[in-house]
Amino acid sequence: MLIVQKFGGSSVADAEKLRRVAGIIADAKKAGNDVVVVLSAQGDTTDDLIAKAAEITSHPSKREMDMLLATGEQISIALCAMALQEMGVPSVSLLGWQVGMKTNSDYGNARIKTMDPERIRRELEQGRVVLVAGFQGINKHEDMTTLGRGGSDTTAVAIAAKMHADLCQIYTDVEGVYTADPRLVPNARKLKEITYDEMLELASMGAQVLHNRSVELAKRYGVPMEVLSSYVRKPGTIVKEVTKGMEETKISGIARDDKIARIALVGLKDEPGIAYKVFRVLAREKINVDLILQSIGRNDTQDISFTLAKTELEHARAALEAEQDAIGFDHINVNDKICKLSVVGAGMINRPGVAVLLFEALASAQVNIRMISTSEIKISVLIDADAADVAMRAVHKKFFEE
Amino acid sequence: MLIVQKFGGSSVADAEKLRRVAGIIADAKKAGNDVVVVLSAQGDTTDDLIAKAAEITSHPSKREMDMLLATGEQISIALCAMALQEMGVPSVSLLGWQVGMKTNSDYGNARIKTMDPERIRRELEQGRVVLVAGFQGINKHEDMTTLGRGGSDTTAVAIAAKMHADLCQIYTDVEGVYTADPRLVPNARKLKEITYDEMLELASMGAQVLHNRSVELAKRYGVPMEVLSSYVRKPGTIVKEVTKGMEETKISGIARDDKIARIALVGLKDEPGIAYKVFRVLAREKINVDLILQSIGRNDTQDISFTLAKTELEHARAALEAEQDAIGFDHINVNDKICKLSVVGAGMINRPGVAVLLFEALASAQVNIRMISTSEIKISVLIDADAADVAMRAVHKKFFEE
Repeated sequence: MLIVQKFGGSSVADAEKLRRVAGIIADAKKAGNDVVVVLSAQGDTTDDLIAKAAEITSHPSKREMDMLLATGEQISIALCAMALQEMGVPSVSLLGWQVGMKTNSDYGNARIKTMDPERIRRELEQGRVVLVAGFQGINKHEDMTTLGRGGSDTTAVAIAAKMHADLCQIYTDVEGVYTADPRLVPNARKLKEITYDEMLELASMGAQVLHNRSVELAKRYGVPMEVLSSYVRKPGTIVKEVTKGMEETKISGIARDDKIARIALVGLKDEPGIAYKVFRVLAREKINVDLILQSIGRNDTQDISFTLAKTELEHARAALEAEQDAIGFDHINVNDKICKLSVVGAGMINRPGVAVLLFEALASAQVNIRMISTSEIKISVLIDADAADVAMRAVHKKFFEE
Repeated sequence: MLIVQKFGGSSVADAEKLRRVAGIIADAKKAGNDVVVVLSAQGDTTDDLIAKAAEITSHPSKREMDMLLATGEQISIALCAMALQEMGVPSVSLLGWQVGMKTNSDYGNARIKTMDPERIRRELEQGRVVLVAGFQGINKHEDMTTLGRGGSDTTAVAIAAKMHADLCQIYTDVEGVYTADPRLVPNARKLKEITYDEMLELASMGAQVLHNRSVELAKRYGVPMEVLSSYVRKPGTIVKEVTKGMEETKISGIARDDKIARIALVGLKDEPGIAYKVFRVLAREKINVDLILQSIGRNDTQDISFTLAKTELEHARAALEAEQDAIGFDHINVNDKICKLSVVGAGMINRPGVAVLLFEALASAQVNIRMISTSEIKISVLIDADAADVAMRAVHKKFFEE
């Protein structure tokens, strides 16, 4: 088998952890597999580099920032190659440009365009484990780029896709994908498998196991992924296109996102184009919104509420207030003490019973619902932050424990 | 003018020092020059990386060590580019492979084979200061290599040579090349200029201002160098092929090397080929020797003495003792409390008076001479280490103060 393994920054944070990771890699190699490994920067390395830049300037050029940050992964792969060699496992480290990882020129958030598997293939043929620096590539000018959030996961999936790997293993500090966050819901169960789409919904809902970007890429190229722990040697959760029993309504999990806030624009004119006016302002500022609720008109006015990342709240408020006259609203109402709770599962749209079960669970736990949103495979509700723990447990009990 | 500037690790150790360096670069640029800058890794970065590797293995692969160490210079150039941009000076950082710095495959001590000035030229044409990572290159396999000691100086001279730069400035923590080490000889004078050959002799004598390797390269391609301070804005010392007044006997300086030891093989057979037998052993062990003295035979036996780096002493002694029977000597005598003192100056060979002045100075200071060696442009004497300070001052006084 050809296996691509990816280890994150906390898994390679120091010499001891690197040796553990090397042990996992060595076992995969000794089992007869060809192994390509993608590593992130060690622990706080990236933060330390950002701090170094901050001492020089408050607005570093993105190109130079990428030049700076790309060193972190380079350190990881070199050290891991040494750790493997110390165990007698032949290995070689390669940078983004050495594996032809070509990206666009969006420094700090570059997108992969192509990768050239030639060098990796040659090294594998020599019997070596190949360690590739995650998160980095080069653009058409041969300048260093970095891939932004979830970059190393994306590097791993891109290599797995291009080389037709049998499996892309993403090692994390959890044992797999759970029906809910085990820290919040003690009875949460680990899933054996999950579809790409369900994983996408869970990830976007705040279950930060995999980054959406890597799952999207895996889905597009049909790369089977496995989420598993770098601390416990156990099978994890397989992410793939179709899972067994797809025809049944199958709830994969309950996700929760606390990092959001809600903005309500009150007293908008009840006329066509009003939503466009509002969201044009936010799009111009590159602010992503998530749930949107447009109230039914009343006395010629209406309200529009939406959720967004808590970190974007003040930016959005300021942008909207600056355009108050142009948009035409009475006032802005914000709330950052809220939480989004989502139930995710394939085939949900065809089973209205799922929504009913969710609402029943919340009602019995005396939790108020502020907004509701549904999609093919998920139902999300907005609730007060201080009710989130109770709500999670009640919903998990309803779907997985009864 | 096209100027190549090189700043060492202590000059770029932190944000404040980087800003000072950026100020020097900005001034050269504003004066209308095209400026290419080569930087070393910040302060202790390289040592920190070596320590990281040591936590993993006591015998890291040299290839992976180069992959690891090359990150240090990358951090420096990115941060310096940011500092220049903060000052409004357009700049761009480039890695070894991005400037086509091709080396052989001797990891950790690679030799430059070619460099491709194309990318640098294009950036200069855009009005940018170009910051190049020193110390690094790639080999024919496109693997990262590092150049070993004096690597960044060599990078700077190589670029200056290839691009026909008007001047290659090496910024250090001293103001130039002195007639003797100013810490030892308070009356030492800074030289306005010095020839490559004189600089080579001074450098190899322990005056660690420039690395021989970079001076040799500069001499081969006729690159004018300037040694100057990154802390004091003053002209430094120019190193070039021919200096004014070359026909006169001109003593450039007095150098001192404490890092040496002497080995004497006593009771060798007085027969042809004996020196070959001795030094073949040392060559096989890759031990460099410096001064060699072969005594005149007496009672069919003779002695051979030589000096070598103190760090090689035990290695050399063990290697020779292991071959005692094959070489055929009575016993080994070692001394690591010695010092080499050298007077360097062009045209010396034709002026026997120089040697006489040196011996006179040492005699009047009551300093015993253990060995003597002469070349085209230098006279070296081996003396006891505890007499070195007195000897330095006496010789400097004789040549520069009388």
